[in-house]
Formats: sequence, C-alpha cells, structure tokens
Amino acid sequence: MNWEIIGYIGAACTTFCFIPQIIKTVKTKKIDDISWIYLGILAFGILMWTVYGFAIRNNVLISANIITLAFVLIIIWTKVYYDKKH
Amino acid sequence: MNWEIIGYIGAACTTFCFIPQIIKTVKTKKIDDISWIYLGILAFGILMWTVYGFAIRNNVLISANIITLAFVLIIIWTKVYYDKKH
Repeated sequence: MNWEIIGYIGAACTTFCFIPQIIKTVKTKKIDDISWIYLGILAFGILMWTVYGFAIRNNVLISANIITLAFVLIIIWTKVYYDKKH
Repeated sequence: MNWEIIGYIGAACTTFCFIPQIIKTVKTKKIDDISWIYLGILAFGILMWTVYGFAIRNNVLISANIITLAFVLIIIWTKVYYDKKH
C-alpha cells in the first residue's frame, strides 16, 4: 500500500476543513463561540510549520501550511467583521 | 539554528490551541457557531495523519496527532452536549 496517499488525504482534510467553517460563519453571520486564543495560537502554529517547511525545504509542508494559514486568516477576518456587528 | 525546534513549536501550537477553545465552550456553554462539517473533516484528517505516522514510524507525527485527536473529540463531545441543551 502507498501510505503517502494516506498522508496527503490527512493534509487535504486538515487544510480544507476550514472551508465549511467559513461558509457557516458567512451564512449565520455569527462566530462568537470560536475562541480568539484558539485562533491566535493556531495561526502562530501554522506559521511556525511553514517556516519549518522552508527550513527543511519540504514543499508539501510549505504549500499545505500556506493554504491552511490563508483559511485561518479568513476566519480571523470574519470574526473581526461579525463580532463587531453585535 | 536548530530548525527542529521551530517544527516542535508549530506542532505544540496546533495541538494545544484546542485547550482555550474547550475552556471557552465550557464557560459559555455555547458552541453553535462551530461547524459540524469542519469538526468531522478535521477529526478524519487528524486520524489519517495518525495512520500515516504509524505507517512511516514517525513518533512525533503519531504522538502529536493522537493528542490533537483527543482534544478534537472533546470539542465534538462538548458540541453534542451543549447544542442539545438549547
């Protein structure tokens, strides 16, 4: 069995899982229940993974984490935007 | 510079970031705004990362992902518990 495929499926899931969260937030216009501290530590952690990816020149780490970071930054932006509205 | 440390900091952040989310949920007793689809895909993705970790015998991948999966399962449990209450 080619185990690399399992790794790629894992990477795809932990990267693109944020899309349904973004869709839900935009639909309901509510995101109070998500913790700021969670989002902050998560974004910082993904940034560290990206730096590590560049350091060891691993393209899978770099690309997966840059995309994930972009999604998490969108979630942070929706939280800034929708939390201000109520 | 020892870049491994940056990788470990990233792993620690993306693992333990779920603790403040769990604390917030238990305090506010509300978790409606977190998407079920997000949690489902995230948990499945982390499980795949864990399987991949076992396949390539990488202890960092295995341990980080088992702990993260435990936290995400706790969040799923809090969502089952608190969503039912309103």
